Amino acid sequence: TDWVGYKVYLDLAGTLGKGQRRHDSDNREELDRARFALDLAAEGKSVAVVSSGDPGIFAMAAAVLEALESAAKPEWEGIEIQVAPGISAMQAVAAAIGAPLGHDFCVLSLSDLLKPWAVIEQRLLAAAEADLAIAIYNPISKQRTWQLGEARTLLLQKRSPETPVILGRNLGRAGQSLKVCTLAEFNPESADMRTLVIIGSSQTRIIERKYGGVWVYTPRRYD
Amino acid sequence: TDWVGYKVYLDLAGTLGKGQRRHDSDNREELDRARFALDLAAEGKSVAVVSSGDPGIFAMAAAVLEALESAAKPEWEGIEIQVAPGISAMQAVAAAIGAPLGHDFCVLSLSDLLKPWAVIEQRLLAAAEADLAIAIYNPISKQRTWQLGEARTLLLQKRSPETPVILGRNLGRAGQSLKVCTLAEFNPESADMRTLVIIGSSQTRIIERKYGGVWVYTPRRYD
Repeated sequence: TDWVGYKVYLDLAGTLGKGQRRHDSDNREELDRARFALDLAAEGKSVAVVSSGDPGIFAMAAAVLEALESAAKPEWEGIEIQVAPGISAMQAVAAAIGAPLGHDFCVLSLSDLLKPWAVIEQRLLAAAEADLAIAIYNPISKQRTWQLGEARTLLLQKRSPETPVILGRNLGRAGQSLKVCTLAEFNPESADMRTLVIIGSSQTRIIERKYGGVWVYTPRRYD
Repeated sequence: TDWVGYKVYLDLAGTLGKGQRRHDSDNREELDRARFALDLAAEGKSVAVVSSGDPGIFAMAAAVLEALESAAKPEWEGIEIQVAPGISAMQAVAAAIGAPLGHDFCVLSLSDLLKPWAVIEQRLLAAAEADLAIAIYNPISKQRTWQLGEARTLLLQKRSPETPVILGRNLGRAGQSLKVCTLAEFNPESADMRTLVIIGSSQTRIIERKYGGVWVYTPRRYD
């Protein structure tokens, strides 16, 4: 009966059915949005919290459970919740370029709004030392301008300048783009808040395609 | 026109259309299967290589590109390839229990058939030190019996015995099961080759549900 979500995602989700209502929000304040959805559900509504990608990966599922736990209201206790998984941005980008996440990898958010930069730095270094491919969410925004450049500098200390880097933006939507470069060539300013960045491991390979373009993949075998 | 894949997955994929052919294989020899599919495509067939989960995550997409690169035949050069992403086992398990992959995590295969155990050990320790949630693929098999127990021992050196562990088996299929325990309670023998294991980070939380069962989630905030 009720759709709750960031306006852009609700627009993408399609047309309302008869008797359904839309509740648009901006792309911040996830906890408020989650509480609002829980309140509606407690009134007996059937509520869809709409997220892009997979709601379980840097998206609304954790926010709803956080709201449920941290500010629990007695009337929320009987609410039935189902999480529907989806294709996360890293998977759309990986599929479009080949299989860069075909072997061990890690998935990091570069946003230091909810965690200290020191934690992010430690995670990047650990991933680099363990030679994992890395999928980076929230690489950059208008407020967070230096973090992606700093990540590149850190990774270059541990990983070859020839390491493949993939930048995917708005995959599956209007104006999608996909670029491949090396870590040395990678310019952080070419990313924005809608970009998903994948950094290869030492094993990640670029195959030139005979009729133009490239494939990027990480082999299953580690030598 | 042609479906290629492990028999169990082709059975799950549904009924053939008119004029379509099935090419069953066992669940090994991915490279042979990939070469066979490329040969069929080079003959002009429209070939689907069927994988479970997301073909880009520990599945057939990397094998097809590996075949394409490592033993390239001239007749393969013009083949058009598309990778269709899907819901990987870690996402199905995460959605069924809440949002344990709601923040930074890593994704590791515990199989030492194609990489040395020393590499796996280093990756587990790096993930533990960086306090990442960990999704473990290929945790155990009839041939590989001790690796999951060794992983548990390594993780217990770095992570609290109270850390949540989730075991999901055959999610979305007949006979599915889902269990939650702590790292201390976790018995590696309760997993098999169809089990996906998620180990929480220090932040991962278990919420008791009033009417039975639990939610497990990793908050977006890191304190």
